Amino acid sequence: MSQNSDKSIPDVQSYADHRHVAIDRVGIRGIRHPVAVVDKTGIKQHTVATFSMTVFLPEDRKGTHMSRFAQLLNEHDHDAHSVANFVELFREMNRRLDSTEGTIEMTFPYFINKTAPVSGKPGMMDYEVTLRADIRRGHEPDTHVRVAVPVTTLCPCSKEISQYGAHNQRSQVTIDARVCNNTTLFWEDLIRIAEQEASCELYSQLKRTDEKLVTERAYENPKFVEDLIRDIARRLDDVAGLCSYTLEVENFESIHNHSAYAVLTRSRDD
Amino acid sequence: MSQNSDKSIPDVQSYADHRHVAIDRVGIRGIRHPVAVVDKTGIKQHTVATFSMTVFLPEDRKGTHMSRFAQLLNEHDHDAHSVANFVELFREMNRRLDSTEGTIEMTFPYFINKTAPVSGKPGMMDYEVTLRADIRRGHEPDTHVRVAVPVTTLCPCSKEISQYGAHNQRSQVTIDARVCNNTTLFWEDLIRIAEQEASCELYSQLKRTDEKLVTERAYENPKFVEDLIRDIARRLDDVAGLCSYTLEVENFESIHNHSAYAVLTRSRDD
Amino acid sequence: MSQNSDKSIPDVQSYADHRHVAIDRVGIRGIRHPVAVVDKTGIKQHTVATFSMTVFLPEDRKGTHMSRFAQLLNEHDHDAHSVANFVELFREMNRRLDSTEGTIEMTFPYFINKTAPVSGKPGMMDYEVTLRADIRRGHEPDTHVRVAVPVTTLCPCSKEISQYGAHNQRSQVTIDARVCNNTTLFWEDLIRIAEQEASCELYSQLKRTDEKLVTERAYENPKFVEDLIRDIARRLDDVAGLCSYTLEVENFESIHNHSAYAVLTRSRDD
Amino acid sequence: MSQNSDKSIPDVQSYADHRHVAIDRVGIRGIRHPVAVVDKTGIKQHTVATFSMTVFLPEDRKGTHMSRFAQLLNEHDHDAHSVANFVELFREMNRRLDSTEGTIEMTFPYFINKTAPVSGKPGMMDYEVTLRADIRRGHEPDTHVRVAVPVTTLCPCSKEISQYGAHNQRSQVTIDARVCNNTTLFWEDLIRIAEQEASCELYSQLKRTDEKLVTERAYENPKFVEDLIRDIARRLDDVAGLCSYTLEVENFESIHNHSAYAVLTRSRDD
Repeated sequence: MSQNSDKSIPDVQSYADHRHVAIDRVGIRGIRHPVAVVDKTGIKQHTVATFSMTVFLPEDRKGTHMSRFAQLLNEHDHDAHSVANFVELFREMNRRLDSTEGTIEMTFPYFINKTAPVSGKPGMMDYEVTLRADIRRGHEPDTHVRVAVPVTTLCPCSKEISQYGAHNQRSQVTIDARVCNNTTLFWEDLIRIAEQEASCELYSQLKRTDEKLVTERAYENPKFVEDLIRDIARRLDDVAGLCSYTLEVENFESIHNHSAYAVLTRSRDD
Repeated sequence: MSQNSDKSIPDVQSYADHRHVAIDRVGIRGIRHPVAVVDKTGIKQHTVATFSMTVFLPEDRKGTHMSRFAQLLNEHDHDAHSVANFVELFREMNRRLDSTEGTIEMTFPYFINKTAPVSGKPGMMDYEVTLRADIRRGHEPDTHVRVAVPVTTLCPCSKEISQYGAHNQRSQVTIDARVCNNTTLFWEDLIRIAEQEASCELYSQLKRTDEKLVTERAYENPKFVEDLIRDIARRLDDVAGLCSYTLEVENFESIHNHSAYAVLTRSRDD
Repeated sequence: MSQNSDKSIPDVQSYADHRHVAIDRVGIRGIRHPVAVVDKTGIKQHTVATFSMTVFLPEDRKGTHMSRFAQLLNEHDHDAHSVANFVELFREMNRRLDSTEGTIEMTFPYFINKTAPVSGKPGMMDYEVTLRADIRRGHEPDTHVRVAVPVTTLCPCSKEISQYGAHNQRSQVTIDARVCNNTTLFWEDLIRIAEQEASCELYSQLKRTDEKLVTERAYENPKFVEDLIRDIARRLDDVAGLCSYTLEVENFESIHNHSAYAVLTRSRDD
Repeated sequence: MSQNSDKSIPDVQSYADHRHVAIDRVGIRGIRHPVAVVDKTGIKQHTVATFSMTVFLPEDRKGTHMSRFAQLLNEHDHDAHSVANFVELFREMNRRLDSTEGTIEMTFPYFINKTAPVSGKPGMMDYEVTLRADIRRGHEPDTHVRVAVPVTTLCPCSKEISQYGAHNQRSQVTIDARVCNNTTLFWEDLIRIAEQEASCELYSQLKRTDEKLVTERAYENPKFVEDLIRDIARRLDDVAGLCSYTLEVENFESIHNHSAYAVLTRSRDD
């Protein structure tokens, strides 16, 4: 049967609305789709993304057309998404939904094949990357890149006051960066900065020679949650193409059943 | 042993810092504590809260004193928290941390003993409530109340186009309200508005007579995610003591494996 | 209106079923309720539990009566649950559901007010405790106690091979113990064993003198996931009233983005 | 640097152990890796899997060699996993870990490109599939296939007793099937059975003509959690290559804030 048969069925969403309440964003959330992404080196990686897609709804329209969001994903199955072209998918969404404002977001595990620091053994490390494009009325679209990077932190106080040892733990660094107009930004570069500034970075495969090195490196390089957030912030100030950012660090403390946490937001215009 | 023995141990957190990076918020997150809360009727309810407590850290101080956050909770074990007095806990946190800015947040399950609509059978319904107090430099503290309310929504389009039946599902309404200065606001009132505007409210215990009523009520009262958010928004405009709010509705669609979602933010100053 | 009006409404659940498929367990899951629990010392603690309640359904009955499960919780609001009396709630559930077999489970955060090891500062530590009663046809009811205990582990290999430092992390020990008939068992005793055998236990509030002690204690007491599970297993062999158990340890590795994990099951009859 | 440099470093894991506690399973958990899987039609699909890999550890060995698990994944990057060949990966794991018993499990989102029932519009539906291979001492390896399938259920009682409408909701069917030796089994077949027996199946994209059909189909086809589990159980009894299974259905009730839940386990040998 053809889609045309829809025409004989009432289109409730298109009815007029008289409540005088415009809706900032309405659409779908939590839809998963297999995707390809392209990183800095131009290499395509297959992964699975979770999408959120929403548009502005003017006060006189009863509903949006929800099926068009899913349709967009299905018709863009062969795209390879990148920071540079994500805004195209976004513009296409707005066109289809007859919208001047909206937000599209995709979150996916991204893998880097890292080599262990001494043995050179390869191993896939996973990171969570989010791309987000957003437009407010009368503005150009914004693109955001968000990375969540697991690292090691080792406590400077614990090291300083103890005869031996120092508590350390897995931490998560989250960088949510707004890309300046007419530039691009690579999520790998943000990931790399978070790893370089941590007490030590993580690996999926470590031999004993590697384990010795990462243990000693962390001990030589103690960082409070406050130190790590400051050191990353200073590095981010020098990243080209980054207009503003929110940076978070959470340490899953090995001596407590709660986290130490820090957050800061900076804008180039500040 | 006394705490004084701390004095002979280096206090690394108190060292000076020379990186020139102030930290917007730093502290602890995800710490659970048994608490009592007091609702509108003055009745005390025992529950369990998860706290997040953070303060501003000036650029010249290396670290904050993390243990003081947990200490605050332990010394306020006998408080009964309410929207009205939450700011007192907040001021006390800032005093102890020697801070002029900060944020404290507690999230807890809150229970209402509802009676089923026909049989009158009682049953405890659970809601998630969050209190948050926040201060930015040079401002008075803000208090926020957030409620997450599960309800039923029934699709108007599905009802209109189908010969019989209509898809419906559990949905979640989230209201994050900023309380005007020198007033209060009750979380039960926000919960009640969300339930009254939904296709139907939920109950923990329903007999057959009740199930008939809630089924028919939902069918008589179809709402898109767009309808529900608009109808609640109109009600919130009339709530005394509410200065601004962000309102979200998420429908866990029974015909899709994803959600329909809407969000809007309003301020009385708009 | 009275509940009697239910009688004029068809009772679909009571219809006969002809598919010849008995159902092992059917009921409700994920219902939250405020509860009181009583520990070893007899002291009552208020908390919030999540319940799962299910019964056997014979092949000739179409459905169970779901509302009776929620009713049971509401009518036992003033109970103080313990390992010793939990089976009473269970027998009551089976009576109401007209059942000879079933399972009831409640999971709740439980708090211990611990004092820091040097400063003596008090602080609430949270643990997750589960009580479960279960009956299979022709058997006496079984009672199970499950505790999830967060601890610190420090890696012996990392300590041995490194010039200084050793990676450590938060770990979770889970003990699921079956209580022998006609005896009891205290969840605090299981929690204590897990904490005593770890590299170090956790606290919610630690002053610097305490942090020095816990850092050094963990370093002096390195344990692989294999060591910790073995040391706890040996302790559990001596616990009176414990008939069989499943023991798990998961280390949230500070040098990897995955966990080290071990599990073993033992029965006194082995 | 070569891996040989490991030889000069103490191999703590290989030390003898004198506690006389063998460990049922020890290894790693929660490691993510990009993978390809092959379904019934032989078509390769790229996705992301989370692995758990564990082996038996005899009582006289102090530790297992954790790095070999991650190494296995990295060296099998180009495999396309299927139910038929998963046991090969498993045997390889046991060889590398010098083990006679163990368990390997991988869980991944799997996508089916479904066409909407009237409009024929295509849309990717996501399911969660788990493969598990397991060997106990003195036995052949077992292979298990687990699928988690989201569907719609509509309440027969609500339909029967109400003048119009009937509450319905998203539900999850979980089938964990053990594959008979020397046969295979396809996860798509298990998914299909769960969808066919539900009140209605889900789609990612539905036009109005489709929405009318799925609404009416669900209303014509009401099922309690008890009905759905029985109807699927009867279908599973006829699946070739399936030796035993555990079947669960959970309804995320649209009229309650909790789930209705049923479970049953059957073996062909029963």
